[in-house]
Amino acid sequence: MIGGGQGAFIGAVHRHAAALDGLYELVAGAFSSNPETSRASGQLLGLAPERVYGSFEELIHGEKQRPEAERVQVLSIVTPNHLHFAPAKLALENGFHVILDKPMTFSLAEAKELEQIAEASNCRFCLTHTYTGYPMVKEARQLVASGELGTIRKAYVEYPQGWLSTFEEGGSNKQAAWRTDPARSGVAGAMGDIGTHAFNLLEYVTGLQVSQLCADINTVVPGRQLDDDGAVLLRFSGGASGVLVATQVAAGEENNLRLRVYGEKGGLEWQQVDANTLQVKWLDRPTEIRRAGTGYVGSYARHNTRTPAGHPEGYLEAFANLYRNFALSLQADLAGTAAPPEALDYPSIAEGVRGMAFIKNVIASGRSEQKWTEFTV
Amino acid sequence: MIGGGQGAFIGAVHRHAAALDGLYELVAGAFSSNPETSRASGQLLGLAPERVYGSFEELIHGEKQRPEAERVQVLSIVTPNHLHFAPAKLALENGFHVILDKPMTFSLAEAKELEQIAEASNCRFCLTHTYTGYPMVKEARQLVASGELGTIRKAYVEYPQGWLSTFEEGGSNKQAAWRTDPARSGVAGAMGDIGTHAFNLLEYVTGLQVSQLCADINTVVPGRQLDDDGAVLLRFSGGASGVLVATQVAAGEENNLRLRVYGEKGGLEWQQVDANTLQVKWLDRPTEIRRAGTGYVGSYARHNTRTPAGHPEGYLEAFANLYRNFALSLQADLAGTAAPPEALDYPSIAEGVRGMAFIKNVIASGRSEQKWTEFTV
Amino acid sequence: MIGGGQGAFIGAVHRHAAALDGLYELVAGAFSSNPETSRASGQLLGLAPERVYGSFEELIHGEKQRPEAERVQVLSIVTPNHLHFAPAKLALENGFHVILDKPMTFSLAEAKELEQIAEASNCRFCLTHTYTGYPMVKEARQLVASGELGTIRKAYVEYPQGWLSTFEEGGSNKQAAWRTDPARSGVAGAMGDIGTHAFNLLEYVTGLQVSQLCADINTVVPGRQLDDDGAVLLRFSGGASGVLVATQVAAGEENNLRLRVYGEKGGLEWQQVDANTLQVKWLDRPTEIRRAGTGYVGSYARHNTRTPAGHPEGYLEAFANLYRNFALSLQADLAGTAAPPEALDYPSIAEGVRGMAFIKNVIASGRSEQKWTEFTV
Amino acid sequence: MIGGGQGAFIGAVHRHAAALDGLYELVAGAFSSNPETSRASGQLLGLAPERVYGSFEELIHGEKQRPEAERVQVLSIVTPNHLHFAPAKLALENGFHVILDKPMTFSLAEAKELEQIAEASNCRFCLTHTYTGYPMVKEARQLVASGELGTIRKAYVEYPQGWLSTFEEGGSNKQAAWRTDPARSGVAGAMGDIGTHAFNLLEYVTGLQVSQLCADINTVVPGRQLDDDGAVLLRFSGGASGVLVATQVAAGEENNLRLRVYGEKGGLEWQQVDANTLQVKWLDRPTEIRRAGTGYVGSYARHNTRTPAGHPEGYLEAFANLYRNFALSLQADLAGTAAPPEALDYPSIAEGVRGMAFIKNVIASGRSEQKWTEFTV
Repeated sequence: MIGGGQGAFIGAVHRHAAALDGLYELVAGAFSSNPETSRASGQLLGLAPERVYGSFEELIHGEKQRPEAERVQVLSIVTPNHLHFAPAKLALENGFHVILDKPMTFSLAEAKELEQIAEASNCRFCLTHTYTGYPMVKEARQLVASGELGTIRKAYVEYPQGWLSTFEEGGSNKQAAWRTDPARSGVAGAMGDIGTHAFNLLEYVTGLQVSQLCADINTVVPGRQLDDDGAVLLRFSGGASGVLVATQVAAGEENNLRLRVYGEKGGLEWQQVDANTLQVKWLDRPTEIRRAGTGYVGSYARHNTRTPAGHPEGYLEAFANLYRNFALSLQADLAGTAAPPEALDYPSIAEGVRGMAFIKNVIASGRSEQKWTEFTV
Repeated sequence: MIGGGQGAFIGAVHRHAAALDGLYELVAGAFSSNPETSRASGQLLGLAPERVYGSFEELIHGEKQRPEAERVQVLSIVTPNHLHFAPAKLALENGFHVILDKPMTFSLAEAKELEQIAEASNCRFCLTHTYTGYPMVKEARQLVASGELGTIRKAYVEYPQGWLSTFEEGGSNKQAAWRTDPARSGVAGAMGDIGTHAFNLLEYVTGLQVSQLCADINTVVPGRQLDDDGAVLLRFSGGASGVLVATQVAAGEENNLRLRVYGEKGGLEWQQVDANTLQVKWLDRPTEIRRAGTGYVGSYARHNTRTPAGHPEGYLEAFANLYRNFALSLQADLAGTAAPPEALDYPSIAEGVRGMAFIKNVIASGRSEQKWTEFTV
Repeated sequence: MIGGGQGAFIGAVHRHAAALDGLYELVAGAFSSNPETSRASGQLLGLAPERVYGSFEELIHGEKQRPEAERVQVLSIVTPNHLHFAPAKLALENGFHVILDKPMTFSLAEAKELEQIAEASNCRFCLTHTYTGYPMVKEARQLVASGELGTIRKAYVEYPQGWLSTFEEGGSNKQAAWRTDPARSGVAGAMGDIGTHAFNLLEYVTGLQVSQLCADINTVVPGRQLDDDGAVLLRFSGGASGVLVATQVAAGEENNLRLRVYGEKGGLEWQQVDANTLQVKWLDRPTEIRRAGTGYVGSYARHNTRTPAGHPEGYLEAFANLYRNFALSLQADLAGTAAPPEALDYPSIAEGVRGMAFIKNVIASGRSEQKWTEFTV
Repeated sequence: MIGGGQGAFIGAVHRHAAALDGLYELVAGAFSSNPETSRASGQLLGLAPERVYGSFEELIHGEKQRPEAERVQVLSIVTPNHLHFAPAKLALENGFHVILDKPMTFSLAEAKELEQIAEASNCRFCLTHTYTGYPMVKEARQLVASGELGTIRKAYVEYPQGWLSTFEEGGSNKQAAWRTDPARSGVAGAMGDIGTHAFNLLEYVTGLQVSQLCADINTVVPGRQLDDDGAVLLRFSGGASGVLVATQVAAGEENNLRLRVYGEKGGLEWQQVDANTLQVKWLDRPTEIRRAGTGYVGSYARHNTRTPAGHPEGYLEAFANLYRNFALSLQADLAGTAAPPEALDYPSIAEGVRGMAFIKNVIASGRSEQKWTEFTV
């Protein structure tokens, strides 16, 4: 693991996610750019001292020198955005599979470069867009793909949070500090942090690609350096349209991610707050409440559920599904077999490039006087 | 009553709303432009045949000739949009108080003319924006006005329906026929029919006025003549911003009106599907579930509720609140007293003019290549 | 109307319910045992002074003397329980149709006597068990009757309220005063006030009859004279079983009536707080959310709904359905036609007798050391 | 681990729960009474072959012979009920800490014997009553204990499932087979399987003990050997009363566990389907929606949550909280320090004895003609 030392939020999430199914063992880490912190974190996590490194370079080179059977196989990179590209590049170039936190890089240019590096490598790559790991999000995608809803016409996604309603970065909140800092986050704040999640969810479930957008991007809290709020009109290739809302100043909201998609014959709704449920709506018959863990859900939802219906699974399980599917894909590779499509269904480089393109385009649109901005990659 | 004959939807709603509190008696009507239909409708409603008229002109002139104590006092006009202005004008000019269905007129020009006529008259005027009649919508407005949420930053409203997902106007659906017909509805379809409701709700609760907008207006169903779908980025005087969504092609949705408003210190959420509840969210303490009929709600909610908490009130009661407040205001006028502010709180001419301006501006923005369109009246 | 003067709760509800559909006109009343209060109430309601009476006897005799076309047709009796029997008896004996508030009488003996009187008369009789007037409760009954759920095995009903959590009757709360007073309420408090509603709902929806019960009846608040809480194990003829809970000391609850019924193949759930929804659950497919006002609901739900789906109807509309169906049945009688079964579906004498038997049996069971008490009438 | 081989449900749950926080390592197992199955399961789990045993006796004796630093520290026993006592006894007598699935034993006599064995040992003991591991259940307990709700008056718990609505044990469903078999489950079916969970939840949150009960126990599905349904009236020491419902024939229900508790001043409601929320209701102010992961929850909820508000945690996390707290308690023991009270809060022997007493008493009451059965241990 690279990053994720003491005080980090997402590092711990990655570790829980990796541990849940017993498919990973944490054996090495460079947990902080501060070697002291890295060492202390490694000790807390019970690692052998010689495999706690002071930097990602040391880690990658150090592990590379170990016998193949005793070296790290997968590197999880959970640093702030500006520290994604370099370790991911080095890892891929040295033959380590990579799990990388989103957004993929600091800039679109980096993303495209990483794409080429990944393609040139023999390594697998996973980008942790958590929400597409939820079983009922997968059910939603499978439902749309089945054509039962007819051609998709409308898609709405919203991700309201309230935690940046005040000037948190002025205090001791480390999460707020780096996420609102252009030097560490990139050109976008809310749009990069949660807007990319919403965007990814939308494209994943609909199977469509955004072709044009029109954004209202705001920095609401005085003194803040990056956007903390935005709303975006969307047009998709093929004619559908929609709206994306992502805001961090919706005071009192937690992580109220919600998706709705409507086709000619019906629609669907999913909310993180009730993650094990997918509402399926029809023109002329009752709304269905589809539930994770039941016998009637599709193969993707079933593959990504651990417990029978009525035992709620949550965010960590969704995250763990990414890790699990990545591991199953690697195991299949090692065994020389083909992983089932359900296991291969995790976000990767292509999603990362589109996410970075979203950031670039949405910020550009926010600054434009023109209504529609082409979505270019 | 003018309009609202057999087969009409909103006429029956008006009659229920007027009847509920026993403050109105239906005594005369011109229920249809077809005198036969008008007569038949009047008979079904048990009216004296001599007070069932063949046209609104006949009704107004006929009633005017009756002794003052025996004449209609209030005229409810429930015709399609293109037949709002003429009867409303004639009614006001002849001293009848008017309750008019929304949107106020066929065009903004008519609306502004009607405003002048109303001001010149001694008559009261009510525009039936139903949703502001809900007690917990009034609670929301009172909460915002109290300043407890701090300065408002974000406001979102959405009104998804699914009933026009197919080409309903091609069949025998009279509601669909006139609502999608430019000759009867005006320049807007969905935006006029439900967009104006959403817009009114937003301005009512926030107490803010939209100053700029950027609209994506679509006609999704092939063959349809007016918009059936739209999404609008909004900017308000004073700096807040938001989003308005109104669509009639969200397959499987009923009348899923939902409002969310966020200030510096907290937010609120209201949904028609759970109309007796107002969620109030805070930065650092639990969300409150405020309920109609309780002892702790404000004076506006209390005034507009008939039953104790736990006995749900619905759409007809909200509608009836408009009628009741209008009647209470008139009774106060007759008594020479001042009606309490809670009774005077019903939508009127000013809201109607803004609604028509919304239609004009939102359609103009939909056609514009420019991002922001000024909201002009 | 008999009873329902100033300060009464249910009288106003009856008036709203009667008014909503324009099928009744309030023309006479004896609103209070205090002639002054009766007169003042009548004046407020705009009645002709000569038809505001000082007692129910005066009203019935006075109206009887009027020409048939000018006399009251239906008498609504909305007094406390101890004043149900006498006016109902006199009304029926004098040929007035009766709408009576529940529970039907003060004692089971009175109920059985009233049953005979009603049968001997040519009058219709309606007992206002409001909750069976909700459209989705009717849908539930029709669903069970259709056999789609299979043989019913379990039925649960609960009616928690919190308003009597403190010694309300010690203050100025008139509602609390008479409802907790054995001289006015009868042998039961909570069981009579809300237990009978729950019981009626259960038998109505399941179509089954309770045959045995085992009750735990409590008076929780010190100083109270009647039960304010109870839970009852139920057995039905035919083998189903269930639980009934009715309490007025569930602090913080409003009128949280909830019903669940399970058969061999599926189940249903209905809650007053979301009254326009019926959840239908199945062994092996998604739960259905059936909604009032849609095209797919059965004939009973459809007949009892005034607005399209998505326009919530509430408690007053449910109450009004009783009044409306009663009026439609009377109109059919007058026209010499047969009312449709949907109109004839309102609670009447038989339900009233069973309700009074429930009170007798449940209180007896509460006092018994024996587990099961036979349900006798 | 003892039990939990291929095809078992709860064994996998235990493994996920143990893995989540990285505090346990699975090193040895006797996964089945069939040595072949045990071996195969151990291999799948990646265990060293020499530590996969053919029976629990072999495991305990085998591990005991290993050097202390290399031996199993904690034994998880996840066998059917009739195989709880013997391995737990042997484990405790040989100095292994024990985590045992519920209900604790096959009979109350065994439970009381195990209690003595545990007390005589130096070992810690955890009984996996999952539901008390949910953070908002802990918040509920802390709220009641704080006295804010006043003296508790009413407590209701219900656990409806539908999965045994048909004669599942007639087919290949292993779960159904042993859970409905008196030789493996004991004297109770539903009451032992889920009734004990409901009972434990009730006593845990209220801090009260059941003193009397009156049960209606049914076997609904023809051919079944044990109860699959029951409802129980409860009286608690100190005067509160309540109802417990547990059924496995509520067709269409998943694991719809729900708890409500009411005191003099307010009440609370928690449901597994919305596990991260605790509703707190008050006599005279809005219901509060308390949410896991927020800053305002109490120390117990906070200690048992891994992610910030809005990232739902579920059943596996609740289960993992038992494992985690057990591990933290053991770590404190090893370090010679006192674990914080939040870590010590996991169900243990005392809860197990009460659970077995519940089974005995509830079945006895079900067979009794007498209304109230004393709750004896």
